[in-house]
Amino acid sequence: MPQGQPESVPRDGLTTRQRRNRPLLIVHTGDMKGKSTAAFGLGLRGWNQGWDTAVFQFVKSAKWKVGEENAFKALGELHSEKGIGGPVQWHKMGEGWSWARKPGSDQDHAEAALQGWHEIKRRLAEQAHDLYILDEFTYPMAWGWVDVDEVVETLRARPGHQHVVITGRRAHPALIEVADLVTEMTKVKHPMDTGAKGQRGIEW
Amino acid sequence: MPQGQPESVPRDGLTTRQRRNRPLLIVHTGDMKGKSTAAFGLGLRGWNQGWDTAVFQFVKSAKWKVGEENAFKALGELHSEKGIGGPVQWHKMGEGWSWARKPGSDQDHAEAALQGWHEIKRRLAEQAHDLYILDEFTYPMAWGWVDVDEVVETLRARPGHQHVVITGRRAHPALIEVADLVTEMTKVKHPMDTGAKGQRGIEW
Repeated sequence: MPQGQPESVPRDGLTTRQRRNRPLLIVHTGDMKGKSTAAFGLGLRGWNQGWDTAVFQFVKSAKWKVGEENAFKALGELHSEKGIGGPVQWHKMGEGWSWARKPGSDQDHAEAALQGWHEIKRRLAEQAHDLYILDEFTYPMAWGWVDVDEVVETLRARPGHQHVVITGRRAHPALIEVADLVTEMTKVKHPMDTGAKGQRGIEW
Repeated sequence: MPQGQPESVPRDGLTTRQRRNRPLLIVHTGDMKGKSTAAFGLGLRGWNQGWDTAVFQFVKSAKWKVGEENAFKALGELHSEKGIGGPVQWHKMGEGWSWARKPGSDQDHAEAALQGWHEIKRRLAEQAHDLYILDEFTYPMAWGWVDVDEVVETLRARPGHQHVVITGRRAHPALIEVADLVTEMTKVKHPMDTGAKGQRGIEW
């Protein structure tokens, strides 16, 4: 929810239907858990609609989010085997991008991140997918590994009807500016405050 | 993430392992999207760990979250057919709880919510599941349909190792007090601000 009516109707020349079906750029930011999990939860809706979904994980460790990865791969197989839901691709920077020739281990992270972005840019131009989940992509943006202006302009001008979800802390102001929907996950309480460590099934 | 070390280690007599494997009560609250999607994203991790998961949807409409429902049912079938992941149950108040004798349509919502809570309480006592997702359960709490003190005490004293995730706006202060992990989803930007309406694959 929200389930209801818009607060105001703009004079943008679009019909309600056009406005309704607008491709969205969604950002999940903030310091608290829930950014990636909410993106993958959203991915379940897309899968159920038969959308072609591609996940790009801009993280080093393969341990984290293996739960979502296995679940989405299983859902993707259900699509290819039984035709239910939509196809799913899952790409990880940490193990070397699946389309790249050389393995990731001996690769510079900045170079790998830039390579990932270039591939995403190509796919956006080709309208390869319905939904792109760029997990933790705010970090390559924050660290200058990718050109923020180029990213923002590419996303803004992307053709067709492609939804993009970007997660990670410290989303760049220019990204927030161009986004349609931005949620900040803020901490009210966290078990690590009382000395707990991450655990199986909860953190990964 | 957070991936690292706790900020402090309490003198609670527990080992790191005990503290790590502590059953969690998690609350996703706030006015913005992402509360339920993050809960279901977390559910993917549990499924991948082989956890027995039960979802209880305290909502009227069957339209919303049908994406997550179909995806989780598909994952649950993968468990029963191929033994991968964990079993999944999905119960909806809106269509009448699956264990209830009479259909939901002619039932009072307050009564239905209370019935749902009583079932959850029974299951917690029996340690029926590893993970409980009580979707939008903050509303029956806020509206006085269930006894807040009873809910809080039942959750606090639940036996064994059962994780519980509760979603919804306006989480009761007593629930936040007893919870281990509380995230607030806050709005930075929402497309309805510019006159868009909810759309397929994004809102449901």
